[in-house]
Amino acid sequence: MRNESIPYKIYLSESEMPTAWYNLRADMKNKPAPLLNPGTHQPMQAEELAGVFCDELVKQELDNDTAYFDIPEEIRDFYKMFRPSPLIRAYRLEEKLGTPAKIYYKFEGNNTSGSHKLNSAIAQAYYAKKQGLKGVTTETGAGQWGTALSMACAYLDLDCKVYMVKCSYEQKPFRREVMRTYGASVTPSPSMETEVGKKILAEHPGTTGSLGCAISEAVEKAVTSEGYRYVLGSVLSQVLLHQSVIGLEAKTALDKYGIKPDIIIGCAGGGSNLGGLIAPFMGEKLRGEADYRFIAVEPASCPSLTRGVYAYDFCDTGMVCPLAKMYTLGSDFIPSANHAGGLRYHGMSSVLSQLYDDGLMEAVSVKQSEVFEAAEYFARTEGILPAPESSHAIRTAIDEAVKCKETGEEKTILFGLTGTGYFDMVAYEKFHDGKMEDYIPTDAELKISRDKLPKIDV
Amino acid sequence: MRNESIPYKIYLSESEMPTAWYNLRADMKNKPAPLLNPGTHQPMQAEELAGVFCDELVKQELDNDTAYFDIPEEIRDFYKMFRPSPLIRAYRLEEKLGTPAKIYYKFEGNNTSGSHKLNSAIAQAYYAKKQGLKGVTTETGAGQWGTALSMACAYLDLDCKVYMVKCSYEQKPFRREVMRTYGASVTPSPSMETEVGKKILAEHPGTTGSLGCAISEAVEKAVTSEGYRYVLGSVLSQVLLHQSVIGLEAKTALDKYGIKPDIIIGCAGGGSNLGGLIAPFMGEKLRGEADYRFIAVEPASCPSLTRGVYAYDFCDTGMVCPLAKMYTLGSDFIPSANHAGGLRYHGMSSVLSQLYDDGLMEAVSVKQSEVFEAAEYFARTEGILPAPESSHAIRTAIDEAVKCKETGEEKTILFGLTGTGYFDMVAYEKFHDGKMEDYIPTDAELKISRDKLPKIDV
Repeated sequence: MRNESIPYKIYLSESEMPTAWYNLRADMKNKPAPLLNPGTHQPMQAEELAGVFCDELVKQELDNDTAYFDIPEEIRDFYKMFRPSPLIRAYRLEEKLGTPAKIYYKFEGNNTSGSHKLNSAIAQAYYAKKQGLKGVTTETGAGQWGTALSMACAYLDLDCKVYMVKCSYEQKPFRREVMRTYGASVTPSPSMETEVGKKILAEHPGTTGSLGCAISEAVEKAVTSEGYRYVLGSVLSQVLLHQSVIGLEAKTALDKYGIKPDIIIGCAGGGSNLGGLIAPFMGEKLRGEADYRFIAVEPASCPSLTRGVYAYDFCDTGMVCPLAKMYTLGSDFIPSANHAGGLRYHGMSSVLSQLYDDGLMEAVSVKQSEVFEAAEYFARTEGILPAPESSHAIRTAIDEAVKCKETGEEKTILFGLTGTGYFDMVAYEKFHDGKMEDYIPTDAELKISRDKLPKIDV
Repeated sequence: MRNESIPYKIYLSESEMPTAWYNLRADMKNKPAPLLNPGTHQPMQAEELAGVFCDELVKQELDNDTAYFDIPEEIRDFYKMFRPSPLIRAYRLEEKLGTPAKIYYKFEGNNTSGSHKLNSAIAQAYYAKKQGLKGVTTETGAGQWGTALSMACAYLDLDCKVYMVKCSYEQKPFRREVMRTYGASVTPSPSMETEVGKKILAEHPGTTGSLGCAISEAVEKAVTSEGYRYVLGSVLSQVLLHQSVIGLEAKTALDKYGIKPDIIIGCAGGGSNLGGLIAPFMGEKLRGEADYRFIAVEPASCPSLTRGVYAYDFCDTGMVCPLAKMYTLGSDFIPSANHAGGLRYHGMSSVLSQLYDDGLMEAVSVKQSEVFEAAEYFARTEGILPAPESSHAIRTAIDEAVKCKETGEEKTILFGLTGTGYFDMVAYEKFHDGKMEDYIPTDAELKISRDKLPKIDV
């Protein structure tokens, strides 16, 4: 039933936008485990990280105590291009499902990069620019992060070198062209441009690449190029910090109308969107001010939280990055080729891993055919064509709303709609043509990569 | 210089949304010429049109006197999914150009259909549903209209049959898949499904189709199927009526901050966006209440206003549609295959044609390489990846802003940014690779199709 006092879209005014990011780690009793030097297995120091990341981002990465970081005015100005993002009441979806649940989604796809990745991309590019750097390097898989970073770099006249997983480079030429439109150089990975790329190509001549391999190349390129640093679109604590803008806005908008969500749902690959969306709500829970159910949704084909182990692991294939403690499937794990739905990183943000390990958050995994079914249903009812990644959250939101229908409970559900699916039509086509297969790794398969986890004594 | 009292984006609240469309024809002294029966050359009567269009839309099409048509509540509810659309102050573009001009754009790409076409799609689908019809038929070229209509029909559980120009069907499989996601059936045109399609295929076995041919098929399908009507995304007066929501919102937002544009710019293919954007401003001009410069921007490769003739012409290739008086290149005219920038219809809305003929509006034509140059420049500064169609308006807005730089004039420019370019990356790729060619038809070439104009005595 339409409640006229609550608009279809809740937009905040510019003056209601957050002026500081919220650092969830400050309220965590059990802090996330520190990054370790892959050689010494000692916690990484700021000086060691400074060769890879900008100084300000190193500070943000290592700071587990400061609750709020001011958002620089220049970044807030950029945010105004697409923020505050709308919080939408899914009246139509509720009606079609016949559920008494009230469903809200925070839509982060209303910028040309098409996803929430831009929130952190502009921050990372800004600090690089401020430090007087020439440019940044990064990797991209499906292309959302590379697109967002290219856009941010164009805005700041910063050079942007993207290593794109080779199979994506070939299968998603349009993603590549968007990045080029924004002025980025895009290299298929593995490439002959880096030592690690050459090594991987020598060992696996026919490889079509992986995210872990592209990360290794981008990091090597950054540390060996004068005036460059590496930037990453997920997993890191600094990224979750920047993405807190999603949750802060959502909370302000809900508070404005006196709405308290019962369940908060986000898709989870590396954890950037989920960590950002839940941040201020989880903060309340950690401080004992309120309670919420949090649900991380991951693909059944890449189930790091639900079937991984909580351990130190490599972040990349070339093992040039620090070690991170996280729920992981092992850095060797690569989801089946038929997996089309994004969220294919082998590990999960250390912050979210710790929260999950502490029982503060739930996790579920969903099959991709069910994800696309939810995506299409959502497109036809709410009008937005969702990214496969985002559709994981839609799937679970629908499932929870259907449970409410069965029990008659009027729960309030909030989920993150992270982006649009314009560049994922090949996957949609497979789904329409009945050619989409589900893949769930067997325990034996998972054991192979798990057995290769580094042995760390901490 | 950033004026803090004017936000980057001006959003209206839901309560500020227009509740009625504005019918510009009511204020025109010289009314647009009537549609003619192609057999008798007499003005089309409502009864004749009722086989093709829904009753309510026939009324809107023929009514040159009623100034306002109430927007039904159901359509206003749908509009709330993506409207009010933002009016954006291009602070960043102004700064980069170093112009004293103040540039605003009304962004209509912030819905999943990706363009302004949805404004009329939902209206036409709504009236079809209300009349108890089973479905609608239409044609689509680049795919913006087909996408919008599919989305509207999904919302209303209405069947949607789209005839897609064959070369687009093959070159733009992703557009096709978006329409399928929304549940539409998409047929490459010409097809063997219609008599006119069979005839065209027999005469031109290797043809890759044209907009005019797809229109003929869609109309035939509608009039020969029980419970179906035909709908069209541009050219018609009813479409301009629905699209007036763009101009009405823009005007409300500008008035709110006491801003009066000097120049209003829109791209022009069939005229739907331009006619909608300028409607309330042109109304003021017609009533002598205010003055504005209006500029229609068309591709140099399909220059109906700047190089066409004002005459009665066929709207389609199969000549099954009524005749319309318009600036036209002749219904046989097909822009060069290397033209990538949309806006490829041979004629222009009768309303806009009349206004242009009366000297109330200017028109310019621009080359596509210059259009893509402006598009890329805009993407890198304003962050939005524009559709090639929209980029025609960007090109001219930039040109006018640069003139202001030369003269020092602080003019206020408003232009329509009709959509996003996610599905146009093949064209962007050509541009990046330096493979984009410009094509300007010679006078001799234009003469060929012009000589085939029907001879009408009115």
